[in-house]
Amino acid sequence: MNDCPFCKLARLGEDDDLVAQRTSTVYVIPAPKQRRLNRGHMLILPNVHVTRLIDVEMPVLQELYSVAGRVSQGVRKAFGATGATLFQNEDAPDQVLMHLHIHVVPRRSGDEFRMPDPTGEQISRAERLSQALALRRALG
Amino acid sequence: MNDCPFCKLARLGEDDDLVAQRTSTVYVIPAPKQRRLNRGHMLILPNVHVTRLIDVEMPVLQELYSVAGRVSQGVRKAFGATGATLFQNEDAPDQVLMHLHIHVVPRRSGDEFRMPDPTGEQISRAERLSQALALRRALG
Repeated sequence: MNDCPFCKLARLGEDDDLVAQRTSTVYVIPAPKQRRLNRGHMLILPNVHVTRLIDVEMPVLQELYSVAGRVSQGVRKAFGATGATLFQNEDAPDQVLMHLHIHVVPRRSGDEFRMPDPTGEQISRAERLSQALALRRALG
Repeated sequence: MNDCPFCKLARLGEDDDLVAQRTSTVYVIPAPKQRRLNRGHMLILPNVHVTRLIDVEMPVLQELYSVAGRVSQGVRKAFGATGATLFQNEDAPDQVLMHLHIHVVPRRSGDEFRMPDPTGEQISRAERLSQALALRRALG
């Protein structure tokens, strides 16, 4: 067993209340750091430990981006967004957590979205739990 | 026939020298606007006209992100990057071209990457042709 925190979350029973959605191969959680004007920022991750997109096996690749597409719609209903920006960092200089993860950032007009976020604000577990619940409901 | 410029590029024979790679369902071109410190910025697009990730059919979805994964590696060889940042905008406020496209931005330490790019610099067709050639070679 490795000590990757995202592999830990991939296991059923680990922080299940923080997981907005699980399929057999991927899961969705609220990002630990979120911009104040882009709350509801989600991460989509494969259960399997993989770092680079090129190493993801086909069925998991499909599932990752199908779920990302649904979350991109879901954040509109859950968080009143008009759209979303999806992004992911591969290797240096900006991939910090070496378990592939796709960011889905809810967007609104005038949110002045920028990346990287100069504030890097950590949000509370309570807020993340409430976001997970809101997205879970929006995804049905 | 619609007047989407990306549907036009999807047709074999249209600006073929600008296309770094074509498969049966997707293609890759150098972005028209690129940050000075992130030259080699590519776009991956489906041939079919689709706006939102959720509307992409499964085989095309697979191909889009398989190719994005290969391009993310290819820009290292072609443009001396250490990694890449992938992103895409879905709907308002930042999706301007309404034909789905995935940005693959070559990254290097100290490139001070930021999104959105405040400069929005348009690069020359000659530079884009040279980038398409370099990536084509890197992808083999």
